[in-house]
Amino acid sequence: MKKITILGSTGSIGTNALKVIDAKREEFQVLGISGYSNFELLKEQIEKFNPKYICIGNEDKAEILKRMYPEKVIYFGDDGLKSMGALDEADIVLTAISGAVGIEATVEAIKKQKRVALANKETMVAAGEYINNLLKEYPKAEIIPVDSEHSALFQSMQGSGSKEVKTLIITASGGTFRGKTLDELKDVTVEQALKHPNWAMGKKITIDSSTLVNKGLEVIEAHMLFGVDYENIEVLVHPQSIIHSMVEFVDSSIIAQIGVPDMKLPIQYAFTYPNREASSELERLDLKRLKELTFDQVDSTVFKGVELAFYAGKVGKTMPCVFNSANEVAVELFLKGKIKFLQIYEIIEKAMKQHEPKEADNLEIIKKVDNETRKWVYDSYGRD
Amino acid sequence: MKKITILGSTGSIGTNALKVIDAKREEFQVLGISGYSNFELLKEQIEKFNPKYICIGNEDKAEILKRMYPEKVIYFGDDGLKSMGALDEADIVLTAISGAVGIEATVEAIKKQKRVALANKETMVAAGEYINNLLKEYPKAEIIPVDSEHSALFQSMQGSGSKEVKTLIITASGGTFRGKTLDELKDVTVEQALKHPNWAMGKKITIDSSTLVNKGLEVIEAHMLFGVDYENIEVLVHPQSIIHSMVEFVDSSIIAQIGVPDMKLPIQYAFTYPNREASSELERLDLKRLKELTFDQVDSTVFKGVELAFYAGKVGKTMPCVFNSANEVAVELFLKGKIKFLQIYEIIEKAMKQHEPKEADNLEIIKKVDNETRKWVYDSYGRD
Repeated sequence: MKKITILGSTGSIGTNALKVIDAKREEFQVLGISGYSNFELLKEQIEKFNPKYICIGNEDKAEILKRMYPEKVIYFGDDGLKSMGALDEADIVLTAISGAVGIEATVEAIKKQKRVALANKETMVAAGEYINNLLKEYPKAEIIPVDSEHSALFQSMQGSGSKEVKTLIITASGGTFRGKTLDELKDVTVEQALKHPNWAMGKKITIDSSTLVNKGLEVIEAHMLFGVDYENIEVLVHPQSIIHSMVEFVDSSIIAQIGVPDMKLPIQYAFTYPNREASSELERLDLKRLKELTFDQVDSTVFKGVELAFYAGKVGKTMPCVFNSANEVAVELFLKGKIKFLQIYEIIEKAMKQHEPKEADNLEIIKKVDNETRKWVYDSYGRD
Repeated sequence: MKKITILGSTGSIGTNALKVIDAKREEFQVLGISGYSNFELLKEQIEKFNPKYICIGNEDKAEILKRMYPEKVIYFGDDGLKSMGALDEADIVLTAISGAVGIEATVEAIKKQKRVALANKETMVAAGEYINNLLKEYPKAEIIPVDSEHSALFQSMQGSGSKEVKTLIITASGGTFRGKTLDELKDVTVEQALKHPNWAMGKKITIDSSTLVNKGLEVIEAHMLFGVDYENIEVLVHPQSIIHSMVEFVDSSIIAQIGVPDMKLPIQYAFTYPNREASSELERLDLKRLKELTFDQVDSTVFKGVELAFYAGKVGKTMPCVFNSANEVAVELFLKGKIKFLQIYEIIEKAMKQHEPKEADNLEIIKKVDNETRKWVYDSYGRD
């Protein structure tokens, strides 16, 4: 029986992870779950999966949970999340909290030599260098990517040596606004930006998808996870989201991972790796309905998310952290209606311009840069 | 230094194999080559690669070679090919002879526990059961498929356990006549049938591609090579020949192998497996030129090659041998202008109908059925 902690159980990845587990109760057990503010859903999940450990965003809610479930261990807040990452009994820690708060919990899980099923992009983007050093220090810990693209890259690499990898080809749906011009994007609303053609996801990641910042984060994450130079990472627009990514090898052979757009597969693969298992939750791609797959280049003159990420990644050090933090706040401000869509790029660009990159070899510096960047964006764009 | 014997060095696969070797002379050495009737090309290859062993179709030509190269070992005919397959010094035997004559040489190579780089479909189609028993008897021998589709399946499987394979999805260009109706195919000429859209290949295989018999042979070969039930083998028309085949696993994940249509990649992979190596001969797929990949179902009402193969495969025993032998003669008769294009199907179908299947567990029965089938087709359709 594999015991699994899910950090972010009420989000899109978390609820899918619970479906994966629910279909295989004989094999997986929910050890702990954490939610932020969706108290009702968290309670439902507690009732259904009976986890021993629970974490919630604030202390008041934690007190309510303690009274409801006196036999359980209830944590709250950022320290609670760290404790959840460090649970000794866990076999797998799924980090499905979007944003920088997931980093510390991931660090705890690595220090406990756990398998981290990583669905928190920011961990490898903001703290990739630090995490990679940590993995050398704790060699029994392992990171299995859950992000659809990185799982695809990871799956595609399995049959070959890592030194044989030449190019990572990350596919991109192109987001809601694929094909649009700068002029057409000037005044798009939050509602328009939240419509994603292929994936049902959280708000933050849907906006990131429409700006292609998400793809940029994936480029940096791929670099950090797989140790491939930025020169050898390409982004290919593929609107159908059927080919989830591809790896080109030194002999020019390309291996691709293909399937329906459904996070349950990469989640389960991270749980069962190196094995694959059948599940009633995993839908087959209907080949009879497969008619055409199209490909295109990213229009970088409009969608600057990828280009800005390559810049941040190549500068390295704390710059990817700034890229990520600035974007997080920018998206928040856009969702609150405080800035326009295209200002997301402006904010990232300016935040990076005003930043002096430093070595990103410990969590303190990363937290500091994260805070400074957030403050800078709020101060510059967030005032009412 | 890996020593390689190439059976069928003057054919399409053979000449590509020599290009692969030529680009990596520090790693590969040509031990032996065999040609059938293209004496001039064989001489060129001898001069360029200086093989120790040479085999040619008939004794007269062999005598000439003996006088020209007194220091070399010269073989001829079918017995010569068997000796070539059995060379002790060989590390790899590439069997690139089309037709049933390659089977015996392959058997010799297996008995000598060699790596067989298999480009002779008929080996696994006509004698798959026998070969699989032989591989159990000689466990150090191995077969690495060279056929583009089977190499793609083999590559796609590398990262997962064989028990995790659910479906083999073999892609098909659809051949020269894709989209044509039965009526349009009634009177097609040899010249029309010999134009293949994507692959430059020999005449026999180009016709087999246009009838989809080639795809049928691949279905049977895939069944024999990978032990996957016929119910779990699918053929998918993919006119661009960029996705060379795919494997669906039990978790519904599909892994595909992708690249330019070029036999040099699967040939080199069979030589370097389990490693991959860069080579100046291996062309990269230009992602910028990748616009769309299309897919369709096989039109079985017109192109019966796949359906007839599934029938032969499911009956099993000596029936796949009949399917293959009948087709070989039918294609020969079509190329000679003695039958019409659609009669290829008629011949295969009738040959199978008149055949009483027997256990195919030794080479004698396979040779007997092969001869009987050929004779039956010649007698029924080949008279002037």
